[in-house]
Amino acid sequence: MNKLILVTNDDSIHSKGIGELVSVARLFGTVVVVAPDKPQSAMGHAITISNPLRIHKFSGFNGVDAYECSGTPVDCVKLAIFEILKRKPDLLLSGINHGENSSTNVLYSGTMSAAIEGAMEGIDSIGFSLSDFRPDADFDAVKKIAKKIIPQILKLGLPSNTCLNVNVPKLPMNKIKGIKVCSQAHNYWSDYFEAREDQFGRPYYWLTGDFSDVDQRNNTDLYALKNGYVSVVPTHFDLTNYTAIETIKFLEDERKFK
Amino acid sequence: MNKLILVTNDDSIHSKGIGELVSVARLFGTVVVVAPDKPQSAMGHAITISNPLRIHKFSGFNGVDAYECSGTPVDCVKLAIFEILKRKPDLLLSGINHGENSSTNVLYSGTMSAAIEGAMEGIDSIGFSLSDFRPDADFDAVKKIAKKIIPQILKLGLPSNTCLNVNVPKLPMNKIKGIKVCSQAHNYWSDYFEAREDQFGRPYYWLTGDFSDVDQRNNTDLYALKNGYVSVVPTHFDLTNYTAIETIKFLEDERKFK
Repeated sequence: MNKLILVTNDDSIHSKGIGELVSVARLFGTVVVVAPDKPQSAMGHAITISNPLRIHKFSGFNGVDAYECSGTPVDCVKLAIFEILKRKPDLLLSGINHGENSSTNVLYSGTMSAAIEGAMEGIDSIGFSLSDFRPDADFDAVKKIAKKIIPQILKLGLPSNTCLNVNVPKLPMNKIKGIKVCSQAHNYWSDYFEAREDQFGRPYYWLTGDFSDVDQRNNTDLYALKNGYVSVVPTHFDLTNYTAIETIKFLEDERKFK
Repeated sequence: MNKLILVTNDDSIHSKGIGELVSVARLFGTVVVVAPDKPQSAMGHAITISNPLRIHKFSGFNGVDAYECSGTPVDCVKLAIFEILKRKPDLLLSGINHGENSSTNVLYSGTMSAAIEGAMEGIDSIGFSLSDFRPDADFDAVKKIAKKIIPQILKLGLPSNTCLNVNVPKLPMNKIKGIKVCSQAHNYWSDYFEAREDQFGRPYYWLTGDFSDVDQRNNTDLYALKNGYVSVVPTHFDLTNYTAIETIKFLEDERKFK
């Protein structure tokens, strides 16, 4: 049966990465694209609740049905399912992101938030990211990886409530050592701000930072990427720390309050 | 030793809820407030990377050191730690949110994203939310709950990488049955869009929706709240579905690619 595949991203419908993903996706089914009309990187799981959303047809994908949307990546997924397709697609693909979404970057990433939103809706969803921020990055290797992973997921499906976070190192294909299933590293950004002055002498702050190295486990996505592997993390939307439930039971209280 | 307590939220520094939280926080230490200068609800873990951030002193908290910031809740936490305080506070409190942040709402919530950002930085962090969206909501009960929970966490601390998501039902104090430690429900928004036309006849879409009832477990935050309890979920930033790692091992490949 022909598969319906929804493609979105966070770098905008005009980025190179989504064009590359569309070219792979159309090998496996009927593709519909609903993606932001402008860059929405680092928007996390933001949604637009206080403003209206706009959709316009987009003709840049050579015959593929495509729409650009004024909202966030998660808005795009919701609009695609409930307004444009009026059904759930068989597969949701997000990316290919210009830049890595390993470790805690998954929380800030619009690319991965779109995939997580898909998982919430019960759709098999995969986010693809390349460890290269450049607008003209070379997506050849990540396209080959996508061609390998997509048919496996179409055939075997994903565990419930779970999407895939696939990150590909910035290496030529013949230098990539293989694919590792990993856990999300706990490393986070150790930020700092550059304080500058505008033309009126008023201060402003620009976020920058370095990545911490707090997580030294050898089964993480960061470890795999650093060692030349593609990382695949099964990612869900349940943030409960189940192992901590017993630890904080001291907070429970069955008494009525006064 | 005097404790340094950072207070933030997503409803903006001008909302009633943050004022109520400041009034509780100052019972337990020296309070510094860094909060958005406008509502930032549903911003999730968004950060501002392509625009400068502005900070202004705010004098609305009766002698408490406070700053309003042009960015998202997560921006506020980063600016507070790295630019304003130049140190990590002993405790981060976020809220009190006007509206519930149970179940998958935790992903969209700016209130909880601020607390999760705190957990990443190794700070004991608590998000407080009340199941009442009204600007003039009655915070008496949630303030009493906060006064009970805050000193316990200051004394005993939280498990690493973990913050608390505290939700209080919209009930008078004498109707609240107690406090339950819970897991995050998996219910999600089943959305739809209202398509309208603007004054020029162009279509626009407005997000709305109902909450699904897919998760029928009796140990979730939603279940506790529906039954008159305060819910406390230990919330972490590791989105790995560890139980799915074995299930998707079929994706692993040690061969070099061609």
